[in-house]
Amino acid sequence: MPTRTAAQRRHEAAAAYQEYVRTCPTQRLLGRLSDKWASLVLVTLADGGRRYGELSREVPGASQKMLTQTLRALERDGLLERAVTPAVPVRVDYRLTPLGRSLVDLLSTINGWAYRHMAEVETARAEYDARREPVGAGVG
Amino acid sequence: MPTRTAAQRRHEAAAAYQEYVRTCPTQRLLGRLSDKWASLVLVTLADGGRRYGELSREVPGASQKMLTQTLRALERDGLLERAVTPAVPVRVDYRLTPLGRSLVDLLSTINGWAYRHMAEVETARAEYDARREPVGAGVG
Repeated sequence: MPTRTAAQRRHEAAAAYQEYVRTCPTQRLLGRLSDKWASLVLVTLADGGRRYGELSREVPGASQKMLTQTLRALERDGLLERAVTPAVPVRVDYRLTPLGRSLVDLLSTINGWAYRHMAEVETARAEYDARREPVGAGVG
Repeated sequence: MPTRTAAQRRHEAAAAYQEYVRTCPTQRLLGRLSDKWASLVLVTLADGGRRYGELSREVPGASQKMLTQTLRALERDGLLERAVTPAVPVRVDYRLTPLGRSLVDLLSTINGWAYRHMAEVETARAEYDARREPVGAGVG
């Protein structure tokens, strides 16, 4: 039985955990949703398909390059699809896939929690800061 | 009526949007949840309070400094509280507040979506990459 020091065991546990976080679907999903442009495009498409120019106007602040990259990444993720209408010029609409629609539902749930509770978080922070200032360090 | 160029209007819209994202509760919440240590500590506390040493063993990979910072930030957010039991030495347990418990429920919902659907996202990516390679640039 190999003898390992506490430091070695700690190092191994840390490496296993890093690997867990790297592959954890939830962490990958949260990373995806934290991309504000991705979330915003998904929510914008929730009420119907959009052409590139329409999205560009409805998601101000995203540069053309950023919007193009975001659309490509969301298409690659299977969250949106490009519907091509043969015409001159060709018309391309971006619209949610069923998977994208399901993710928008999840975003709505997250959104609901945030709007119901983030004010409580802000209040808690203000109270914590107010408690800390006069008293100094507490127990522990 | 002041005359503004398209570039000025675009700049103003971008600034307004940046401000919206900065103050948007959902984006602030997602930023909070993307902190993997915060999420992991919350989930660990879901099945009961823990002492510092217990958390330290159950959340391997977090350095002492990181764990201490995470606990303080979560307490400041009103998501966990320190229950102090008078004893020698003083016993301190970290446990979820009702707000923290509610956030853990949201995390479970996110977790559920991720485990049900992230494999579809991976499959979509692989298919997208396979389609792109032989064909080259598509329409649009």
